[in-house]
Amino acid sequence: MPKDTTAASLSATEAARKIRDGELTSEELVQSCLERIAELEDAIGAWTHLDKDYALAQARAAQDRRQAGESLGPLHGVPVAIKDIFDTHDMPTENGTVLHAGRQPKSDSTVVSLLRQAGAIIMGKTVTTELAVLHPGKTANPHDLKRTPGGSSSGSAAAVASFMVPLATGSQTNGSMIRPASFCGVYGFKPSHGLISRHGVLLQSRFLDQIGVFARSLEDIALMAEVLIAHDPQDPDTRPHAAPRMVKTAAGEPPMPPRLAFAATPAWDEFADGDTKEAFPELLQHLGIGADSLNLGPAFEQIYGWHKTVMGADQAMNYRREYERGKDKLSPTLVDAIEQGQKVLAVDYNEAMATRDGLNRLLSEIFDTYDAILTPAAAGQAPLGLETTGNPVFCTPWTFCGVPAISLPLLEGSDGLPMGVQLVGPRGDDARLLRTARWLIEAVSGEAAL
Amino acid sequence: MPKDTTAASLSATEAARKIRDGELTSEELVQSCLERIAELEDAIGAWTHLDKDYALAQARAAQDRRQAGESLGPLHGVPVAIKDIFDTHDMPTENGTVLHAGRQPKSDSTVVSLLRQAGAIIMGKTVTTELAVLHPGKTANPHDLKRTPGGSSSGSAAAVASFMVPLATGSQTNGSMIRPASFCGVYGFKPSHGLISRHGVLLQSRFLDQIGVFARSLEDIALMAEVLIAHDPQDPDTRPHAAPRMVKTAAGEPPMPPRLAFAATPAWDEFADGDTKEAFPELLQHLGIGADSLNLGPAFEQIYGWHKTVMGADQAMNYRREYERGKDKLSPTLVDAIEQGQKVLAVDYNEAMATRDGLNRLLSEIFDTYDAILTPAAAGQAPLGLETTGNPVFCTPWTFCGVPAISLPLLEGSDGLPMGVQLVGPRGDDARLLRTARWLIEAVSGEAAL
Repeated sequence: MPKDTTAASLSATEAARKIRDGELTSEELVQSCLERIAELEDAIGAWTHLDKDYALAQARAAQDRRQAGESLGPLHGVPVAIKDIFDTHDMPTENGTVLHAGRQPKSDSTVVSLLRQAGAIIMGKTVTTELAVLHPGKTANPHDLKRTPGGSSSGSAAAVASFMVPLATGSQTNGSMIRPASFCGVYGFKPSHGLISRHGVLLQSRFLDQIGVFARSLEDIALMAEVLIAHDPQDPDTRPHAAPRMVKTAAGEPPMPPRLAFAATPAWDEFADGDTKEAFPELLQHLGIGADSLNLGPAFEQIYGWHKTVMGADQAMNYRREYERGKDKLSPTLVDAIEQGQKVLAVDYNEAMATRDGLNRLLSEIFDTYDAILTPAAAGQAPLGLETTGNPVFCTPWTFCGVPAISLPLLEGSDGLPMGVQLVGPRGDDARLLRTARWLIEAVSGEAAL
Repeated sequence: MPKDTTAASLSATEAARKIRDGELTSEELVQSCLERIAELEDAIGAWTHLDKDYALAQARAAQDRRQAGESLGPLHGVPVAIKDIFDTHDMPTENGTVLHAGRQPKSDSTVVSLLRQAGAIIMGKTVTTELAVLHPGKTANPHDLKRTPGGSSSGSAAAVASFMVPLATGSQTNGSMIRPASFCGVYGFKPSHGLISRHGVLLQSRFLDQIGVFARSLEDIALMAEVLIAHDPQDPDTRPHAAPRMVKTAAGEPPMPPRLAFAATPAWDEFADGDTKEAFPELLQHLGIGADSLNLGPAFEQIYGWHKTVMGADQAMNYRREYERGKDKLSPTLVDAIEQGQKVLAVDYNEAMATRDGLNRLLSEIFDTYDAILTPAAAGQAPLGLETTGNPVFCTPWTFCGVPAISLPLLEGSDGLPMGVQLVGPRGDDARLLRTARWLIEAVSGEAAL
């Protein structure tokens, strides 16, 4: 993507500073983003709902608040794109299925509510795959329109990559944050399970669903994550905890150079493509990391099966109404997944769920020695064709364990397309993972990342 | 039971006060309880592990601490019986099955640890049914040795009823606290799900397992519950909260006379026996409560099936090792329950679990009008015979909803045997339920209960 020189090309952090300092108005920024969208949306198809006048009206209201001397939130005046599975009281939320066409929630999801409190402009709703599973929407990859942007957070990743907005929300039940971030060449961060509330977000699997953020810089990732990480009694998996200092920690110097371990993972042999198998050894050599892959032990080979068991059974339960009332309007892949899930036994389901604590203990031992695990974000570049969204297999173990993961756009494949490097950290130590990520970016680029 | 006039007949509250004030030593109290046990144990069979010398040694150590001027816990010097599913680092914990014969835990369950911190003497381990399910142990009902004491907390209820100890721990996954309390004529209190830690206790069902306490007075119930209600990170269902003031609240005057609603429950027609059908209308008339049963709505009729689904699947998972390694040493009823549970589908299991929040919302509406629900604790008097432990059906809905319940020994059946009145309160408002219970005891007896 050619870097835009208009306001739309600013990072969220820069834009928020300029707006605060009076160098830029929210309306100018939103107008610039809308121009970018007008130029590219026909080709990319990132949006499912966008009301230009309403976006501009929000921007003018933000200016009014600033002029009235009200205290300004950290995202004051900055437009954010919302994946169309997050409820919005003022925009439809259709969850990527015709079965929910015209669905208008009565209230905001907690994430959208927190963004509004932080001063953000809710720009519109972005394309999700069908019910946030595999069947793709209309979105194309901004780097090559013949390729998938990845899924399920397809529109959010593509909108950020094409400078339509600086920030977007996403979610991951298998590989729906990290994979599209990798394919679209943006930063995608999925904090630990239970850090960001899922209240008002399409429920696919309580055990697996995790909320994340897209941006074009690590600093922006930290800025948005800090706004969204909050205890919410309406999500039973969030917990009260001290407010995280994501921005400050991510910007800080590590006390000593972080130690990284490479994990090829059990998916490497079968699924990593030629670009990945070439790029990662080079990266490891550049970083002076031993190319020996971390031995994650035999339990990790079983994660893919456990994940399928839990996700299938949860889809069968949570999408039962859609299946019963509109099976003929669902994709054959989803119908098949639901029907497989209907057959899952409770003992198998519960035994799969019961493995997570033990897996996290195994990971803890690794994280006693290493600051983060370095591993591919996807099998390679975005694959050709819009009929699939690529393989989530390099995300599955980390989603299942509920550990924080981030995709950094540091590599390029043989067709000149972006490839992400995934960093994975210990559960709950999300701020430190961002600090390690910043160190890695600087180590690869030779430039300061923040 | 004739009331003993020795120290063993004291309530825990009285005994603790006398020990604190130097009117009684812990050794005298423990000795008195041991004499009571020596007299009755052959007939009643409440204990599975009892070491007299070790109990006396604990009592002498308690005296030493008192003489050294150490601060004394609320149960200082008071003996407590422990159901043999709570791990004890210094006594075997055999869970009522020969498959665990000689099992010696390395550490204490949280409950036992809290009791020790409060100064209690861990008297010994009491008989549980097989793996805390239905198959009975050796215990007989102290009021009639030909009758069951109820289960699964059989030994604990019988030991308190026969003045062997003033206090005992129990647990309830269906009706294992309230039913034996009713049959044995003692107080049995099962606080809200998640208030007392289950760490180090035999896991039958994370969703259903709840810890409770037996005593011979409401004051003692409050005293022991206050010691045990505590956040424990090792039980993921407990939560941080302000320390409950069970003793103070239970002793306080209600601001106005509590309003009680009678719930016959869907089990009444089929399962309540003649004594129950005679006694409850009389009780309601005495209290001036309309005899019209609360309409709990159609969802409550389904609870019994949902409970069976969850309990069966959880038994199949949690008792899988026992089933696989020693099926021939398990009772046919448990083998059958496990085999039924193995067939439960994950969707049915999850849908059953997902109903609890809605059921609690229905109950909340009732508790907006009424302070507590009054309902039978069991079908009637303890049934004849030791081959079953009676029917838990009058406990099932409240266990499933995780609401607090207490059995009060206020009624007598046609054979002169005790029958409990069960009071049920809103989830999390446990102290107020005890205050309401005290009011009810006084309203029935015409005497002050505390």
